[in-house]
Amino acid sequence: MLTLHGFDASNYVNMVKFALREKGLEFEQATLYPSQEDAVLSVSPMGKVPVLETGGVFLSETNVILEYLDETTEGPALYPADPLEKAQVKQLVKHIELYLELPARRCYPEVFFGGQVSDETKEQTREALLKGIRALARKARWQPFLAGDRLTAADVFFLYSADLAKAVAGKLFGIDLLAEAPGSAELLARLNERDSAKSVAAERDLAMEKFLKYARGGK
Amino acid sequence: MLTLHGFDASNYVNMVKFALREKGLEFEQATLYPSQEDAVLSVSPMGKVPVLETGGVFLSETNVILEYLDETTEGPALYPADPLEKAQVKQLVKHIELYLELPARRCYPEVFFGGQVSDETKEQTREALLKGIRALARKARWQPFLAGDRLTAADVFFLYSADLAKAVAGKLFGIDLLAEAPGSAELLARLNERDSAKSVAAERDLAMEKFLKYARGGK
Repeated sequence: MLTLHGFDASNYVNMVKFALREKGLEFEQATLYPSQEDAVLSVSPMGKVPVLETGGVFLSETNVILEYLDETTEGPALYPADPLEKAQVKQLVKHIELYLELPARRCYPEVFFGGQVSDETKEQTREALLKGIRALARKARWQPFLAGDRLTAADVFFLYSADLAKAVAGKLFGIDLLAEAPGSAELLARLNERDSAKSVAAERDLAMEKFLKYARGGK
Repeated sequence: MLTLHGFDASNYVNMVKFALREKGLEFEQATLYPSQEDAVLSVSPMGKVPVLETGGVFLSETNVILEYLDETTEGPALYPADPLEKAQVKQLVKHIELYLELPARRCYPEVFFGGQVSDETKEQTREALLKGIRALARKARWQPFLAGDRLTAADVFFLYSADLAKAVAGKLFGIDLLAEAPGSAELLARLNERDSAKSVAAERDLAMEKFLKYARGGK
């Protein structure tokens, strides 16, 4: 049995949950919050979630988990079989994480959690987000899916990164980030209409209040 | 034919070059510097190097390139065949990149290129590097190789990230970073003794003077 450790308000946890549902895989969930306590670090070396437990091993890093699931389980593939096409999807996934989600994340404390980030961080984030979305636009197809004809891991990462990056760009900089990549907003809307996305979103909304109390209380 | 686009002073380019040599693969090199010019962006969406050209396609992101090479060519594998072991190596690779190399990179302008970074950046880098090396120590085996019995992509990333992260931690913070992960300094020394590492290092040293002139002149 696969066990997904994490909490339903985490966008990376939701990437894995969405993927598991799209693939029709059974899994259990166990609540785990990010922490630097030894018990958490023993299963997740950075103290981050999600963690996928499988065969007595605890895997972290969402893209690594998605690739592992694709290699070892049945159900619709999230990566193309052809090695070169697969590499291009992995490249898109990495772009979304490193050049959109992670820069946006630096400003989550101010945008979502009632904290403050410095002007330096904001300026770096603004530049990074614009560079990142324009870079993604150079490679993405958007129609009907981010990498082309089929749903891939790139859509999974986009679905749970684009909304947050858009919120950061809008609230802090007054920038309509997805307008920089024509077709991206429409893809986000289509992805949100999928049954897997709807169930993940409903569970996220239920979990969010509890998480915000935790996050705003400091870690 | 495989063509590696980049320049010999880049640590990420050197990861790919080292891997190609360890695998005994023939390749051509073409000089490419990071740039936001259209000609560069058309082959590398973030304007970064390395780029591997294969079958008319330009792949960027070093870990994606290494995984693609492993899947499509002969020679010693840099990832285990077993999916769960492979996932664990990918996790190590990602840790080294995201939690050591990229935090250290924020301080390269001051440590290597005669520039200055802010106190905020330094403090964030210091915290990140200590967290990152301790996280890596929780998962790494170091003996004889980072992930265990065989050379893997985790060694490749470590070889061309640890020296730079160590330099940043030493020069800016007076911290002996590798002392936080017993066994890591010895692994770095062993890896540097490999023929592939020696040839890459010799070419790097030749290219470095030209690159420093370029980097210190501003981009």
